[in-house]
Amino acid sequence: MRTPRRPAAGGAGGSPYRGAGVVITGGLGFIGSHLARRLVGFGARVHIVDSLVPEHGGCRFNIRDVADAVTVTRCDIGDRDRMRKVVRGQQYLFNLAGQSSHWDSMMNPCRDLDINCGAHLRLLECLRQHNPHIRVVYASTRQIYGKPEHLPVDETHPLHPVDVNGIHKIAGESYHTLYDQVYGIPCVVLRLTNTIGPGMRIKDDRQTFFGLWLRLALEGKPFEVWGGRQLRDFNYVDDVVDAFLLAGSSAKARGRIYNLGAVPPVTLHQLAVLLASVTGGRYAVTRFPDDRKTIDIGDYYASYERIQADLGWQPRVSLRSAVEATVAYYRQHRRQYR
Amino acid sequence: MRTPRRPAAGGAGGSPYRGAGVVITGGLGFIGSHLARRLVGFGARVHIVDSLVPEHGGCRFNIRDVADAVTVTRCDIGDRDRMRKVVRGQQYLFNLAGQSSHWDSMMNPCRDLDINCGAHLRLLECLRQHNPHIRVVYASTRQIYGKPEHLPVDETHPLHPVDVNGIHKIAGESYHTLYDQVYGIPCVVLRLTNTIGPGMRIKDDRQTFFGLWLRLALEGKPFEVWGGRQLRDFNYVDDVVDAFLLAGSSAKARGRIYNLGAVPPVTLHQLAVLLASVTGGRYAVTRFPDDRKTIDIGDYYASYERIQADLGWQPRVSLRSAVEATVAYYRQHRRQYR
Repeated sequence: MRTPRRPAAGGAGGSPYRGAGVVITGGLGFIGSHLARRLVGFGARVHIVDSLVPEHGGCRFNIRDVADAVTVTRCDIGDRDRMRKVVRGQQYLFNLAGQSSHWDSMMNPCRDLDINCGAHLRLLECLRQHNPHIRVVYASTRQIYGKPEHLPVDETHPLHPVDVNGIHKIAGESYHTLYDQVYGIPCVVLRLTNTIGPGMRIKDDRQTFFGLWLRLALEGKPFEVWGGRQLRDFNYVDDVVDAFLLAGSSAKARGRIYNLGAVPPVTLHQLAVLLASVTGGRYAVTRFPDDRKTIDIGDYYASYERIQADLGWQPRVSLRSAVEATVAYYRQHRRQYR
Repeated sequence: MRTPRRPAAGGAGGSPYRGAGVVITGGLGFIGSHLARRLVGFGARVHIVDSLVPEHGGCRFNIRDVADAVTVTRCDIGDRDRMRKVVRGQQYLFNLAGQSSHWDSMMNPCRDLDINCGAHLRLLECLRQHNPHIRVVYASTRQIYGKPEHLPVDETHPLHPVDVNGIHKIAGESYHTLYDQVYGIPCVVLRLTNTIGPGMRIKDDRQTFFGLWLRLALEGKPFEVWGGRQLRDFNYVDDVVDAFLLAGSSAKARGRIYNLGAVPPVTLHQLAVLLASVTGGRYAVTRFPDDRKTIDIGDYYASYERIQADLGWQPRVSLRSAVEATVAYYRQHRRQYR
């Protein structure tokens, strides 16, 4: 895994995060743990909150190299008593906790409601009461757009969630922008596209199909490509961490919603070819399964012009480099992610 | 209060509701009770579900003239065990239960979440398991549009909820359209604008400011007009009942979202003048209160072209007639609505 190597978002040397108190919810997860590592590198005081729900993305191995430099509280972000103590006196909160699984949200919609709505609402109420000046960045998802009406998809594109999870992520976004407008808690929303990198969930496709592909490829088993001609964009996790850091530290970002994305988009088939060439693995192209056809949204790729214009963000890591770095990580560590 | 006087939606004489089993959630409330009365007139078997939460709109007086002709179950619509028995074998469900108060949703957002999201999600899960062929019409609200970007507001206008209630009503809509798409439960969404008529809540402004105005006017107290120049559209409750009946019985409506509305829009000041002239009451124009400024959305009026084109719906009762009928009702019955 990479060590901090980038200039601090907001200015090399004088990072706004140096010495700052930073809470990362979902901080033992894939993206949260990279963010934690980067912030530790900047000299921030990092407090991770993670409930370590087995179906979600968190595991302690993700922060093994910075475990001594961070505080970890294992709790639900909706636990007001514990969160009150966590958030007091902190300056930043990166809110990455949540459930991202389409399937789980359809199988148990009320549980998804509690995790992705109830807990975030309680967290924001806790901030309102105990730390309304904390700067919040909320991790949302491109999945809320549903099947695109036009490409590339910008932030004004209508929202057509295709599952319960999407409905609740929209609500999660809206809570944050509302609490910004009404109570003055400075919030920014990032709509992430497919993110890949070391630490991503590979046990199953609960985070992204790519994790499952990668594990099967490394195990010498064929992975399934549903359809294959659909266009998608992929970000490497380090680029996504850059976006979080910029969003948290820029006054201009406040109250705004930003897409992430990457150019050029690639087809799933192109991605499969790339993964197979890097791993030596095999794949089979199959029909989109009937029981998941509502999430067959066709082509998707984002316009990230808004964040580029406002914050100067753009992805820097090529898809090939991203895949190579991820494969290299799991060649070494995949037993930790079973 | 009017007795059934209109042709049955879907055809006079041969109403599709004759002999049908119809569930009305929130059926002791303002609009729900009018719907119940009309359906009884058509010969439907009406089953009302209402939790009679004091802050909501339900009261038994609303159905006093048809009480013997309907079944009433007092329970939360999220009570799966009881709702299972209610919905089995029924053909229609008019889903009007919920909390509509801006203020309550901000004071207790988690309660609003449970009422407007959790309970509806549990109800839809109950339908999926026990009666997936029931035809559902969900009562949504124009409030989810927030401050209009253009006028009139049609159904493709972006959604910018200005309170927690709006966020949860969007989720409520989305659950219904999703369960239609994924599980084939036929659902229609109506986005109501300001509805007035006998049975509306006048104790406070939890349903609409107009209820409070009317009560104060009848009590000889001045009512407050915040601002006054804002345009709004108003529907009489009988017209809204028409829309529900058409939406429930038309195959074309399935999976669709429809605005209600009325032309021409009027300013709040014009409405105040009208109400004062009908009641002999007084009003005072004041500044919009600071603690409610986020709900100061300026002008709003809807385009209802879509429902007019698809279902032939249009409002028939003039604003003056609506105000006169409502005032006449409360001159007689306002002690029942304290």
